[in-house]
Amino acid sequence: MLGKCCYFRGMNRKDLLQLIIKKQSLLCVGLDTDIDLIPKHLLKYEDPIFEFNKQIIDATIDTAVAYKPNLAFYESRGIEGWKSLEKTMQYLNQFKGKAFTIADAKRGDIGNTSKMYAKAFFEWMDFDSVTVAPYMGADSVKPFLEYKDKWVILLGLTSNAGSADFQFSETGEGKLYEKVIRKAQEWGTPDQLMFVIGATHPEQFVSIRNIAPEHFYLVPGVGAQGGDINQICQNGLNNHGGLLINSTRAIIYASKGEDFAEKARQCALDATQTMAPYVKSLTA
Amino acid sequence: MLGKCCYFRGMNRKDLLQLIIKKQSLLCVGLDTDIDLIPKHLLKYEDPIFEFNKQIIDATIDTAVAYKPNLAFYESRGIEGWKSLEKTMQYLNQFKGKAFTIADAKRGDIGNTSKMYAKAFFEWMDFDSVTVAPYMGADSVKPFLEYKDKWVILLGLTSNAGSADFQFSETGEGKLYEKVIRKAQEWGTPDQLMFVIGATHPEQFVSIRNIAPEHFYLVPGVGAQGGDINQICQNGLNNHGGLLINSTRAIIYASKGEDFAEKARQCALDATQTMAPYVKSLTA
Repeated sequence: MLGKCCYFRGMNRKDLLQLIIKKQSLLCVGLDTDIDLIPKHLLKYEDPIFEFNKQIIDATIDTAVAYKPNLAFYESRGIEGWKSLEKTMQYLNQFKGKAFTIADAKRGDIGNTSKMYAKAFFEWMDFDSVTVAPYMGADSVKPFLEYKDKWVILLGLTSNAGSADFQFSETGEGKLYEKVIRKAQEWGTPDQLMFVIGATHPEQFVSIRNIAPEHFYLVPGVGAQGGDINQICQNGLNNHGGLLINSTRAIIYASKGEDFAEKARQCALDATQTMAPYVKSLTA
Repeated sequence: MLGKCCYFRGMNRKDLLQLIIKKQSLLCVGLDTDIDLIPKHLLKYEDPIFEFNKQIIDATIDTAVAYKPNLAFYESRGIEGWKSLEKTMQYLNQFKGKAFTIADAKRGDIGNTSKMYAKAFFEWMDFDSVTVAPYMGADSVKPFLEYKDKWVILLGLTSNAGSADFQFSETGEGKLYEKVIRKAQEWGTPDQLMFVIGATHPEQFVSIRNIAPEHFYLVPGVGAQGGDINQICQNGLNNHGGLLINSTRAIIYASKGEDFAEKARQCALDATQTMAPYVKSLTA
């Protein structure tokens, strides 16, 4: 149990803002590490996935505010994959307070089951936060909110094409994603609850900010999926920062050669440079 | 990779009906195995969770049609938990064709990520089916549907109290759960797609059968959650059987003593006895 030996209290919203100001960055680096896409020279290592993650983290830790391993990429490799994730989290947790960690798991089940998922991510792995799916409602989300200084990042409006299927449904209390964002504020405060808002819907950020002005948003979908950092910052920034902008493929797979970490760093710096004028306006 | 060594083609809808008729049962046994709730005498085994599951399976295999480990209970125990699940699936896969297996995972993510989850459950673990959450729409579900003779069990109307928060939203195309059940039929056929319909909503089964007459429903929520087997069978059975009725706590925790497996068997037999008059009407 990784969590047991760590007494760091976790990051609150103020810590997160300070980190953003310190690094002048809103960048979250996605660690969707795929054995078929990483540079071939890493395959000689005992755990190529961990080695890749470690080098990506080392190359970007001064400019990335958050790291977000997507669980599916580890789960698909069985026990071996879980070991790579465990090692990655042990490594990331050495930077406790210097980088915010997100388990991109999109879990959610009936109460007693969600409690077990919360245990997995907050106790075993000691992540700062976990992404949660809203379909099953209050009792599927609340067990995650019971952990002090841990965060739930609830799916609001996702970045994928399929977001059009149900999330835009008119419910009589706004579109479904608006209803989710409103309703969830009855369950958790802006100090423990964030929302996933996809960068592919920049025009929605203004109205969503009206519904949830204080909350942080985790924003996937820039880079490979087409979202634009400038638009997101213009429409989504608040006084607390309020944005963690995720980039995965554009950074971690910037090069397939031995220079992958260096190239990842360059792409991360390019992204934060775009964010810098907006971050500049923030004060702790 | 467990799946690699197994060439059984998986179970189609006809196989499932034949199994139901052979066992005269619609029973699915939930394997939400919690180290704190299993009989103490099992703690002497190297892997108490697997030992518990194995004894439950041995005691119920002649009367249960399906087994449904809930992933959260394994995930919460870290690598050790995943090893218990792997062993449980290796054991269950010896009964290939004689019991239908369900990964109760409630996963769902953007396309390239759902693909990795599908790999985890269908290739690594070789489950027959996996539960999937609908919030993220088509591209989050379709990668699971690409496996021949494997099944997606999509959350429709769940059994928990939180189902009231979003699933009953009026969308202009019916309630959200009705829209989900209708829309998903554009993605998959009744030979590869089931729906989760909670036993705690017996009055909804009739109208849901109008929307999805041919599909199988996985029905959680009898026993501890209060659902009634008779009502479910009366309102939900179709010519193909069309129901897998799950019971977890009432069966696997029927006794905390050394007689737990025997008591589990008795409770499973009681449940199937209630189902028998309905199953009797089915023909292959």
